[in-house]
Amino acid sequence: MFIPEFSDVIAAAEAIAPFVHRTPVMTSRQLDSIAGAHLLFKCENFQKVGAFKFRGATNAVLRLSDEERRRGVVTHSSGNHAAALAHAAVSRGVRAYIVMPSTAPEVKKRAVAGYGAEITFCAPTAEAREAAAAEVIRRTGATLIHPYDNFNIIAGQGTAALELLTDHPSPDAVLAPVGGGGLLSGTAISARHLAPSIKIYGTEPILADDAARSFHTRTLQPPLPPRTIADGLLTSLSERTYAIISKNVDDILTVSEEAIVEAMQLAWERMKIIIEPSSAVPLAAVLGNKSLFAGKTVAIIISGGNVDLTKLPFGQHA
Amino acid sequence: MFIPEFSDVIAAAEAIAPFVHRTPVMTSRQLDSIAGAHLLFKCENFQKVGAFKFRGATNAVLRLSDEERRRGVVTHSSGNHAAALAHAAVSRGVRAYIVMPSTAPEVKKRAVAGYGAEITFCAPTAEAREAAAAEVIRRTGATLIHPYDNFNIIAGQGTAALELLTDHPSPDAVLAPVGGGGLLSGTAISARHLAPSIKIYGTEPILADDAARSFHTRTLQPPLPPRTIADGLLTSLSERTYAIISKNVDDILTVSEEAIVEAMQLAWERMKIIIEPSSAVPLAAVLGNKSLFAGKTVAIIISGGNVDLTKLPFGQHA
Repeated sequence: MFIPEFSDVIAAAEAIAPFVHRTPVMTSRQLDSIAGAHLLFKCENFQKVGAFKFRGATNAVLRLSDEERRRGVVTHSSGNHAAALAHAAVSRGVRAYIVMPSTAPEVKKRAVAGYGAEITFCAPTAEAREAAAAEVIRRTGATLIHPYDNFNIIAGQGTAALELLTDHPSPDAVLAPVGGGGLLSGTAISARHLAPSIKIYGTEPILADDAARSFHTRTLQPPLPPRTIADGLLTSLSERTYAIISKNVDDILTVSEEAIVEAMQLAWERMKIIIEPSSAVPLAAVLGNKSLFAGKTVAIIISGGNVDLTKLPFGQHA
Repeated sequence: MFIPEFSDVIAAAEAIAPFVHRTPVMTSRQLDSIAGAHLLFKCENFQKVGAFKFRGATNAVLRLSDEERRRGVVTHSSGNHAAALAHAAVSRGVRAYIVMPSTAPEVKKRAVAGYGAEITFCAPTAEAREAAAAEVIRRTGATLIHPYDNFNIIAGQGTAALELLTDHPSPDAVLAPVGGGGLLSGTAISARHLAPSIKIYGTEPILADDAARSFHTRTLQPPLPPRTIADGLLTSLSERTYAIISKNVDDILTVSEEAIVEAMQLAWERMKIIIEPSSAVPLAAVLGNKSLFAGKTVAIIISGGNVDLTKLPFGQHA
């Protein structure tokens, strides 16, 4: 099991620089005032395809051998990784095969198809997904690029924190959402190297808390069926991401669904930026643990901004 | 009737610099591709109080005499100017009296009250509004700061285009929405001076097209009752803004309600920024007049980002 080091993140940053956006770090005096802390938001919602996933996917595509490039890449995902891999591969002349459940929202099917990927539909179960991906690999020889249990993906995701800590060298803490753990692993590798005494927090919905349970029991725990609004965080840790996280992360904080929606609405209303529910999870964790962060400089990775504008969770308020 | 010159915009920019955000200019390759032009977005949705209005309001407050400062300022508005004047005045130690219709949305009442203004409610008619403002002036001696028919307001609004054209000196065209004409007037004064050959366009909803009718008939026209979703553009030109606009603006383009909603959704989905319907009007005008802007560099003033997230216009799509 290979685990990236900081030098791998540096190498990834150099490789992907021509192809990814160097996203801005935004601040908000209003949110600082509400949080009682100074918040730095690394805005990967402004990244290509609207999510940090484009970093890892680009790095993975650039690491392919010539023979692998000829055969293409495959993944199973209906989310940001699918779109990111499709765009990263096709724009570099590599075929992308994406396995998606036939029940995926039309808007996501269209996005992936729009990037030029070939979509294979399957039944919405893990078994069907694995079988469909295996069949694609058998047929095409394509290389599987797992959404997070992948050395180059993790190294690529670490470049967001690398940029953040280059622009703002010494926050007291950095927070990232955790689903499968690719972003949190990359963030931890960069942050632990660049700012050894920084506090590193994973943040997770209570309704998808396998990472928190694994972290606190010090044993990789199987996921319960996740039901959270944070649709980017439905996946669960792998042995690889668990190893990185258990070694480098200080704690994993969990938040309620209501807190996620409130934090998301706060960012939309006060910062005028569109962040997806998964990105609201770390902000919710800061707002729900005020004494932990009081007076501190706290960096948050805003993971993405892909939402269905026709299905928003904001209720009527007086 | 005093009309600001470019030197007044420069003076405004120097005066307000410590108090306003220098907002970023954003670009989007996806929107460029859709528009067939290179678009520059001056993001006043990131301005304080979420709109360019804070520029003019701050300039107006800073120009008060000591005696005027002691007596306070008053305006009638339920929109961004009310919030902007409230925040600009109170944060500089000046009392702000805001006349609002009792029917204004609670969220706007709360925002204005939250900035520390004293609100006077009135019936939702022009007569009641004028009478209530006159009564406040009689009682307090406060200075009326009109939302757009005001020398210092217009000079202040011109600082957005000044910044834009400092950062990006030579676009082929600049577009701003037009309601009462304060923003378009200020934009025209700055743009005509800094880039004499630039094309300057006002953009307006068809359902609130008094500026277009005035411009094309070369006579200031009375407004018809406006019904547009672009709630920042319900006001109509004054003699002063008409004089500036008729002299400096190349054309006024009008757009349908459907085009406004489509452009707004496009900006939200592709740029991940929250813009209000009024700000989508110039983008809609670019998308609706592709041959006019083909291959050109086109600057757009994004006027603000204040929307009620519980009442969004985005329909279901497949």
